[in-house]
Formats: sequence, C-alpha cells, structure tokens
Amino acid sequence: MSNTFGKKLTLTTFGESHGEAIGGVVDGCPPGINLDLEEIQQELNRRKPGQSKIVTQRKEPDEVQFFSGIFEGKTTGTSIGFHIKNQQQRSKDYDHIKNSYRPSHADFTYDAKYGHRDYRGGGRTSARETANWVVGGAIAKQIIPNIKIQAYTSSVGSIFLEKNYQELDLGLVESNIVRCPDQTAATSMIDLINITRKQGDTIGGTVSCVIKNVPVGLGNPIFDKLHARLAHAMLSINAVKGFEYGSGFEGSKMNGSEHNDIFNKDQTTKTNRSGGIQGGISNGMDIYFRVAFKPVATIMQYQETIDKHGNSVEMIGKGRHDPCVVPRAVPIVEAMAALVLADFTLL
Amino acid sequence: MSNTFGKKLTLTTFGESHGEAIGGVVDGCPPGINLDLEEIQQELNRRKPGQSKIVTQRKEPDEVQFFSGIFEGKTTGTSIGFHIKNQQQRSKDYDHIKNSYRPSHADFTYDAKYGHRDYRGGGRTSARETANWVVGGAIAKQIIPNIKIQAYTSSVGSIFLEKNYQELDLGLVESNIVRCPDQTAATSMIDLINITRKQGDTIGGTVSCVIKNVPVGLGNPIFDKLHARLAHAMLSINAVKGFEYGSGFEGSKMNGSEHNDIFNKDQTTKTNRSGGIQGGISNGMDIYFRVAFKPVATIMQYQETIDKHGNSVEMIGKGRHDPCVVPRAVPIVEAMAALVLADFTLL
Amino acid sequence: MSNTFGKKLTLTTFGESHGEAIGGVVDGCPPGINLDLEEIQQELNRRKPGQSKIVTQRKEPDEVQFFSGIFEGKTTGTSIGFHIKNQQQRSKDYDHIKNSYRPSHADFTYDAKYGHRDYRGGGRTSARETANWVVGGAIAKQIIPNIKIQAYTSSVGSIFLEKNYQELDLGLVESNIVRCPDQTAATSMIDLINITRKQGDTIGGTVSCVIKNVPVGLGNPIFDKLHARLAHAMLSINAVKGFEYGSGFEGSKMNGSEHNDIFNKDQTTKTNRSGGIQGGISNGMDIYFRVAFKPVATIMQYQETIDKHGNSVEMIGKGRHDPCVVPRAVPIVEAMAALVLADFTLL
Amino acid sequence: MSNTFGKKLTLTTFGESHGEAIGGVVDGCPPGINLDLEEIQQELNRRKPGQSKIVTQRKEPDEVQFFSGIFEGKTTGTSIGFHIKNQQQRSKDYDHIKNSYRPSHADFTYDAKYGHRDYRGGGRTSARETANWVVGGAIAKQIIPNIKIQAYTSSVGSIFLEKNYQELDLGLVESNIVRCPDQTAATSMIDLINITRKQGDTIGGTVSCVIKNVPVGLGNPIFDKLHARLAHAMLSINAVKGFEYGSGFEGSKMNGSEHNDIFNKDQTTKTNRSGGIQGGISNGMDIYFRVAFKPVATIMQYQETIDKHGNSVEMIGKGRHDPCVVPRAVPIVEAMAALVLADFTLL
Repeated sequence: MSNTFGKKLTLTTFGESHGEAIGGVVDGCPPGINLDLEEIQQELNRRKPGQSKIVTQRKEPDEVQFFSGIFEGKTTGTSIGFHIKNQQQRSKDYDHIKNSYRPSHADFTYDAKYGHRDYRGGGRTSARETANWVVGGAIAKQIIPNIKIQAYTSSVGSIFLEKNYQELDLGLVESNIVRCPDQTAATSMIDLINITRKQGDTIGGTVSCVIKNVPVGLGNPIFDKLHARLAHAMLSINAVKGFEYGSGFEGSKMNGSEHNDIFNKDQTTKTNRSGGIQGGISNGMDIYFRVAFKPVATIMQYQETIDKHGNSVEMIGKGRHDPCVVPRAVPIVEAMAALVLADFTLL
Repeated sequence: MSNTFGKKLTLTTFGESHGEAIGGVVDGCPPGINLDLEEIQQELNRRKPGQSKIVTQRKEPDEVQFFSGIFEGKTTGTSIGFHIKNQQQRSKDYDHIKNSYRPSHADFTYDAKYGHRDYRGGGRTSARETANWVVGGAIAKQIIPNIKIQAYTSSVGSIFLEKNYQELDLGLVESNIVRCPDQTAATSMIDLINITRKQGDTIGGTVSCVIKNVPVGLGNPIFDKLHARLAHAMLSINAVKGFEYGSGFEGSKMNGSEHNDIFNKDQTTKTNRSGGIQGGISNGMDIYFRVAFKPVATIMQYQETIDKHGNSVEMIGKGRHDPCVVPRAVPIVEAMAALVLADFTLL
Repeated sequence: MSNTFGKKLTLTTFGESHGEAIGGVVDGCPPGINLDLEEIQQELNRRKPGQSKIVTQRKEPDEVQFFSGIFEGKTTGTSIGFHIKNQQQRSKDYDHIKNSYRPSHADFTYDAKYGHRDYRGGGRTSARETANWVVGGAIAKQIIPNIKIQAYTSSVGSIFLEKNYQELDLGLVESNIVRCPDQTAATSMIDLINITRKQGDTIGGTVSCVIKNVPVGLGNPIFDKLHARLAHAMLSINAVKGFEYGSGFEGSKMNGSEHNDIFNKDQTTKTNRSGGIQGGISNGMDIYFRVAFKPVATIMQYQETIDKHGNSVEMIGKGRHDPCVVPRAVPIVEAMAALVLADFTLL
Repeated sequence: MSNTFGKKLTLTTFGESHGEAIGGVVDGCPPGINLDLEEIQQELNRRKPGQSKIVTQRKEPDEVQFFSGIFEGKTTGTSIGFHIKNQQQRSKDYDHIKNSYRPSHADFTYDAKYGHRDYRGGGRTSARETANWVVGGAIAKQIIPNIKIQAYTSSVGSIFLEKNYQELDLGLVESNIVRCPDQTAATSMIDLINITRKQGDTIGGTVSCVIKNVPVGLGNPIFDKLHARLAHAMLSINAVKGFEYGSGFEGSKMNGSEHNDIFNKDQTTKTNRSGGIQGGISNGMDIYFRVAFKPVATIMQYQETIDKHGNSVEMIGKGRHDPCVVPRAVPIVEAMAALVLADFTLL
C-alpha cells in the first residue's frame, strides 16, 4: 500500500498531475470533530501554485470537495473522501518528455519499473500530489488542536537564517512570500530566487519545523519511533535529500558532557539538544527538525539527455515550474508533521 | 506492531539488556537459500562488545541460535526464530537508575509512557537490541547476495574523512578498529576516542554507507520510497540524529543546473548527486547516504539530574559503555540497510 | 485502517448512502493492464438496485467514474481513484430513525461507538457501500483473467438448490432474476421472494461460489490462509452469518477414511472435499464455498423498538428495500472473492 | 507477514513440529498487567498431547518459558518473547512422507509452493503450532479479565449436543475428557471416538464458543468487523472448514419478522439471533459462534497416494495422532477468540 500513509490515522491518495482530479481518503479520524473546512482550504491556499511571483505560475484554484465522513459539520468516524479538480492542465507542454527522460526526474525510473506511465506533467510523480497531503494534514491539525506545528524557510541556496528558532517570531512566517520569519533574510532569499529564475535556473533550500505543546509519551519504541516516522514523512516529500532533528549533524561533533540535556526539577530540560524526543518517545520539550530540499530539476536551460532508446536529445524546461520549491514546501512539511503527530496521538 | 520492521521480509524482536535472552523472528524469507550461519555470526562479531579497546568492555559471546525455518541447511520459507543469550549481566550496576533519570536517556520517557520499566541496563532501550537487527540484516544480505552494502566511519567528533567514497578502498574498512577505510584518518579518530574515554567523556560521529549493484526499480512511489524507508531504518538506530542521501544537505545550496545528473546513453548518469534514487525508485547507480550519531549519553563524570519525585540527585556513569558508538554502529547501519533492500527486492 | 481491504492489492473506500458520492482507491494494481471499463460497469449493473421486481426499487444509475491510474486505456501501476454518485436519495424516508434504533440494524452500535452518525439511509452501514467493492472486484477480475469466479443463489429461505455445482450449468446464472442456475429452483425462489415481499417481510438465503483455474500455491500458511481470508471477505458483506468451504459443516460428521481426497497421479485428487485448499494454500482443484445471509432487517411491518432515550416506539420500514438480499449479493460475493484471489496472486 | 496475527496486540510465531523449539513474540501487550504464568501453563495443559486416552499419545511437557517483556511479575509494555521446547520428536516416524504426499495434508501444497520443506511431523503445518496460539491467547485473556470466553465440544461426528448454550452449565466443560458440558452427550462422544480410534479411523466435529460480558463497541465497520476477524481467526485453525455466528446458516432460512431481535428498554435485546454483533460492532449481548472441524487426515489404515514423481505408493499413518481433534481444539478456539477480543479492546 505505497499510496497510504499512517497507521491509525491514514491518508490514501490518488491522482496524476494532468488527470481530471486528484484526491484521497482519510481513515481513522475520530468522530465528533467540528471540522473547519475553511481552514483546510486556507492550508491549501498556502501551497497553491500562482500565489506569488516566486513560485510556479500555473493557476489552479485547488478547491477541495468532501464527499463523506462529515455530517452536519462534524466528523462521524467514518472515512472521509475528498477531491481536488485539476483545471489548468497544459498537457501539450509535456509532449517532449513522452519518450525522453528529464535529468534528475523520475521519468526513467518509472518507465523502467512500470513500462507505462502518464508522462503529462510528471503524472503521479508530480508534486501536485502534495495538495492531497495538505488536505490530510489540515484535518490532522484539527484532530490535535493543542499541538502547534510551524515550519519556515531556513535557507535558500547559501543564504541561511542564522538564528535558531527561539530567537525568531514564528508568527511572522506568513508575512513574506518566501515564508522566512526574519525580514532581512527573507529579502535576500527572495532576491536570490528572482535572480535564479531570471537565469532559467533553480535553487535548493531548507525548511525548519518547530512543534510545541507535544504531550509526553508520543511515539513507540524500537521500529516506530516518533523521529523515525517524522524522517519517513519528510523524505516522502518530493526533492527532499536530508532530515535532522534536535542537534542533528552538528550533534555528531559534540562530547556527551556538552550534548546531554540536564533535567530541571519539573522534568523539563535545561537545554534541548535531544529535540524533544528520547528513545523515540516525546519528552514534552519542543520538537524541532530541519529538512533539505534539492533544487528543482526542471530548468529553463538546454540540457543534454537521452530518449527511451538511448539516443541523445537536447531538452529545455517547458510548462510552469517553481524556481525554488521551499516557499510552497513549508505547508507541506507542516502537513506531514501533523499527520505523524495526530497518528501517534490516536494510537 | 512497533517491534516489527519491514513489510514482506519482517523482523520482529524482543529482549531486554539484562533479561535471559534477546531474539526475534524473521518472516518472509524465501525458501531454498543456503544460509551461511557462520557469516551471520561474523556480522554479530563485528557488533560485539569487547571487540577492541575503544568499545565497551562488557563481554558477551553473542552467539546466535536458530530454532526454525532452516532445514538441512536451507531456508524453508517459514518463519525463522532465533535467540542470543545474555551472559554478563551486572544488574547491580544499574540500581542507581532504578528511581532516577539519566540525562539524555529514555528513562524518563519510558517511565512516563509505561509506568513500569525494566531499568537494568536500560532494558528494552539498550542498544543491545541491535544485535537482533544484525542477525536479521545478515540473513537479508544472504537473500540479496549481489547487492553490496558497505558502511564505514566517516567522522568522529570533528575529525572528518575528507574524501568521498569513490576515492576510498572500502575493502579496508575492517583493517582498523574504528572502521575507517583511510588509515590516517582512522589513527586520528582512534586517538580522539581514547582521549575522550580517558576524560570519562563520549563523542559523536557519522557513518557513511554505500550500496552497489542495486537493480533498477527498487522502491515504491509516494509513501514507500526507497530513501524514506532507509531514513526510517537509520533513525531507528539508537543515538541517530540525522540522515542524508546523495547530495544531502549540501545539495540544498546548489543550483539545478549544477545539481542535475546528466544521463549517459546507457541510462547511467555522469554524476550521481541523486544518490541512486529518483522518485523513490532506484536508478541503478550507487546508493549512498550518511547517518549522524550523537555522543553516548552515559558519561563517567558527575552530572546533576532528578529522581522520579523531582528531587535533585547527582549521578555518574556505571557499567561498561562505549566512548563512541560509531565503530560498532557500522555493522548495524549495514544490517538495517540490508533489511530495507531485501524487503524491496522481495516486494 | 478499517476501510481498507487487502494487502498488496488494496481497496480503500468511503461513502454514506445519502452523501453526494461513494467511492474509493484501488492501490497495487499492476501496470499495463487493458482495463475494460464497460465490463466493470456491467458488474455494477448486476448489483444495481431496481434491476428487477424482486429487488429494491431505488433507482440509481450507479455509473462509476475513474480519475487516475489509467492512461491511454491501460493501468499505470499507480493508485486508481473512482466515484459513484448517489442520485435518488430520499433522506426524508429516514427521519424516523434519526433518534430511534431499528431492530437488528447497526443504528444502536454506531451510536454507542461514535456518538454522531449519518442516519440517512443507514449512512456508512448501508449495503450501498458494496457498490465500491464491486468496482474493486471487477478490476481484480481483470488482473486474474484466467481464474473464473462464479457465484449463484443456492437457497432462498428453505428452498434449496439440491444439486452440487458439478451438476449445474453455471452459465445459466444470469438467465433468471434470482441468479439460480437451475430454472425449476429459480422459479420457486422467485415465487417465495414475491410472496414474502407482499407480506411486507423479508427472507434469508445462501450464495455458493465456485472458483476454477486457480493455480497451485496461492495462500500463505499460518495466519494468512487462503480460506481464512475468503472467510474474512465474506463475513465483511452485510447480513452474512456463516461461511463454509469444501465439505464444510457436513464434513464435521465424516470419518477421515471417507473425507480424505485421494491423489491421482497428476496431483489432482479424485474427490475434492478439501475445497481446493490444503494448509491454507490452493492445490489446483476447484475452490468452492457457501455463504449464509440472514433476512434483511428492514421489514414493512410494525415492530416495537426503542429510541435513544430508551422509550418504546413503534416503527415500520420506509424507503426502498430488498425483500431478499441474495440475488444482488451474487456479484458482491464474486467481487470479494476476486479481490482475495488477485491479492494472493500478486503477493 | 503471514506468521503474525492481530493489529494492536500481535502474536508472531515460529517453529516446526520436530525442530528444537517453537515459540513467538507477543507485541502490544499493555504495561502493568500482573501476568499469572501458572494460568498460562494451565491453558497449555488443556491443549497438551497425551492428556487423555482419546487424544494423541505423544508426550510433550509443553512448558512455556518467557524471556522478556515481564519484569517483577508485571508486563512492561515491551514485546514478550517465549519458547516451548520440543521433546519427544520421533522424526523417523516421518521418513515415509519425505518424498510422498499424504492425502488431505498440506505436503503437496507446501512442496509445490516452497520446494523445500521440513517434512518431519508435518513441519510448520503441524497443529503443534497452535501451542503458541494458546500462549498468546492465555496472555490475551489476562488483558481482558472481565470478558469470559468459553468453548465446548458441540458435536463429534453425527452426535450433536442438541441444546443451545443457555440450557447448559458451561462450568462443566472441563468435567470430562471430550469437553462437552452435557454428560450424556459426552459419554456418547467419547465412545464414538474410542470406536473410531480402534478402527484406525478419525472423525470430525464442531466446537461452539460463547463470549460473555463483552462491552458495547468492539469491532470496526467495513473491513475489520468483529465477526469477520473471528471468522479469520477460526479458519486459521488447522482442520477448520466452516464458521457461523448467531443464527448462522439456520438464519438464512428465516423471515425478517422472526429473525429480528427486538430491543428491551435497556438496549439489550429480547432474542439474540444477531449473536451479539451488529454492523461488525458488539452490542453487549453474548457473542456465540460455531466452528466445524474435518476429521484428522492421518488415519491408521492403508491409503493409496503418490510420491513426488507421481508414482503410486501405499501409505499408512505412523506417529501419534488424534482420532478426533475436537477435545484439544476447545482451548485453541478460546485462545484465538481471546486474541481477537483483546486486540479490539486495545484498538
């Protein structure tokens, strides 16, 4: 069941970039929750293409429609089916990849594995799929209203937000189009994305995420650790190349005597290099992690590549693409984190 | 089922550090495989405590015993039960943690979640559990004999092996006790671990892993991506704080024009920043990734901490512990990677 | 994930009887299958309400619409999303059960478990859900075109088809509206249903199913036996009270010397009391089983019952209901069997 | 994972009839339960071979040994590993089936599926495996101490216990060796088994099971219905050919007006043809069901059969076998029911 995420709260999805609709089924949602559908749509709007000048200009209203599991405004405990119609398909933009493989895309691996693929807009490999995840995540957020999940852009290319999250006002994330809570860094990042876009190029970046008000005890030992599932969730997002939580890769340079988090008498800890998780189980401190995104593979420059038969062809990006995936990835990171946290809450 | 790993090839484990035995069940192993039990024991020996002066001096023979699923030297396709007896338990060493919480250990979270825990030697949270994984991984390696999985120590503290894997002779990994294939770096790492140990301190590090001869097509799109499962596997290992594959966090700084892997006519790629995976599916190039380990939390220095009732207590490490987990983590990383690769091969 | 059926080939469904649509996601379908959508619709038509005078007169076109996973007429290996719109909802017919519990319906148990339920038309408990299963089963049939699955009505009330399946021409199942391949028995069954309907009553019955051309080796030992999954599948169908395969309950009266199936030299057996399965694994002989359906609980007679508050109320069936579920259950039994067989074929 | 049963409370097993040991892992057991190990052993003793003259005379102490998950007498919430050593293997008794297929056994299907099998004593297909289930079930019973599960022999061959369970004193089940709570019927059954044994033959039978004190709300709609899982559990037991609950196959002959269970004001029902379950969810009334067992396939009479190469051979049963499986099946039926009920209780 590779199109299903979660154990108790599950999201099962379908849909190709240029099919009639994408959608899914959320199973395991508890009954009696007053679902705020407007909030769900707001989350989708944060991910929506065409929302600003630094993202893809494909126009999709991305309106989600629900079919079941909600009665008189409240969840019933039965499965929730939903749809998002695809509207502005320009399938012709993709004729050039019907028989050729774009560099660093999944065209080749899908063709090798399945033989037959819907190449239009990348088909099932398109990040359009993540709109389904945002719907699932938005429902998940409403299942765990006390847990606060906030992601933000922490780097674009080599421009890093050189502050840790405690020094930031995370309420400012939505105040700029790159979703970086530091205005100075945000401006530099936006400039870099604009320059990159004008060069027909793309650029990578990182998204950080902070989760507050996590109760003690979420996560299960051995093979269902909270951070292992967060890693799984984040590495499921298109273009992600790395995940670290708490002290992360920097922590590998430290001594135990400096890394250990000393307890306060109230069972909180003075430092939080652990990132809110011990032995796979939340300890009540903030959970925080960072996710690395590679640059979008579709560039508006000529690249040499091959067709199905191994012939050399030249290719240039067509269609409407993001110069940097990171601003739109912020709500996706939150959505996947919400699905994980809600799942463990219900387990 | 938080004690089960895998989908088609599964490993289900049990065992506390100071119980009579640890062990598990491997399910889904295909029939007709000539299992080399000696090779399995060899893998265990690579993980064994007491193997060198830079690891814990606890002496455990770690002999694995099989009970089922193997008949006349060959697997039968039925489940394989196995045991590793615990021998040198010194449970008294742990009386001091019966009612107190070691900093950056899972004592507190287990107590909060379960109420009742086997505190001796860390109980189920002990890295002793990973001996079970090495058994499972050693079986997995024999299911996929053509795929070559080799991990090695790539850093200890701030001493980094500043070469990428193509520049190294991975055949040298076992030539030194820190399992670093570069003799110069290895010597520095060993020195650093020795110094750290003498200070009663511990130190983190990273393990890199290279997987060669992977067929095209392993991995499943959307929520069962090959790299997402590798991440899940690695983050399941005790003390791991981060995972990156291919270009990893460095890749987030790049432009698409430099990051993209251009195809050769034979469908290999000129570069391999993708790390052998596209869209969650192996593309036939080498898979490589890096795993960050925090320093071991148990240090031989006095630390302030609290007991169950929130009273301050002072604590110093007792028992026999690793000053650096990385040398013994190398076979564990390989084992978990083998379980993932074999699982996808069988799916 | 109680709304998902299957392991490798999965069907995840949603939908209430009187919601806007029901539907689901089929995951795990292999790529490259030329799906005959017309055949899928034909299966739905066999289950459709209003198809004859002996079934419910609710009119639903039950047209299935596909959204993904099919490209240029062939499956792509990605998940298949589909919908069936609900059209002739008469929700008003159900106001009387908003606060009262129909006898032998799930109104009470849903209310007790979930607190909040969509009572209209039985909501999620409605057998309308089985239309989704027929879609899934019809896809499954096309995955295993060589395996022939044929169900038929073997009893209505006390009118039994007193022949075993080898004596019948299963090609005649669709020749009458009760789906019994013996015309004489069929006439009696139809008469009995008509009489029962006129009395405002309902009647139970049994459906038998024969599966031919099953390859040797489907099914897995211990907890995933072929017949155990068939039982699970059949007992999932609304109103089913029993399942037996091969010699079934009659077999419990026999001696081993008469029950044992003696082998022919070609590994077939002279008799087939085993019902085509040994040790949970198909042996290549026909699989056959029988399923018992209780009478539909909604009757057009006054019954005493209670409301939410424990007050006595009188109730009479409203809406449009089947006097006997069996004729429409025939394609549902086949669909569930097809899902099981296809799943094991792909495992 | 065909060797794992359950979702939240899982039992994973291993072991061949003539290997060194059988055993398993129980995962998902809640912490803090005072496990009565003596009671677990008592359940094993009820299933034990050699317990009376009407069962197999193989002598096995069947002593269970636990390795983990229990600390100071209480469960810790971690996985529970256990073993039962095999002692009186007489593997030589089975040389004759090394290359031949016993009629109505799984020798042929295992050979066809796996190629390589442990033929000794039936290997993994032996009902010896069910000793593991009894261990799991005995733990499950202690997780749900308020729910009372009692099975009993309701028929042997054509000798039926012609009373329903309400007319019986279920406290008498253990008062005779055939486990039938009616002494007159019991005597006839025992006589029939003795006669059958002397003829070198075997005989089938049925086991009924009653579950009392079930809370309202166990079970999940659609594909995880309580009765569907009970059916799956029962059909997993060796030699089972059928399952019915509540009114069962008899119910298929009834009219709705006689079958419907009318509510009392306290939400109980006047009759209980539903068998305690509506829509897959328990309604608080007694759950009851009946399971059909075929006669044991191994008979002490010459039977014609074939070897691997399709040659005719004659075969006569060797080893020690049950003339009727039903008396020892009673605790197995209870164990599997307990695993299902405990699992749903924890879900």
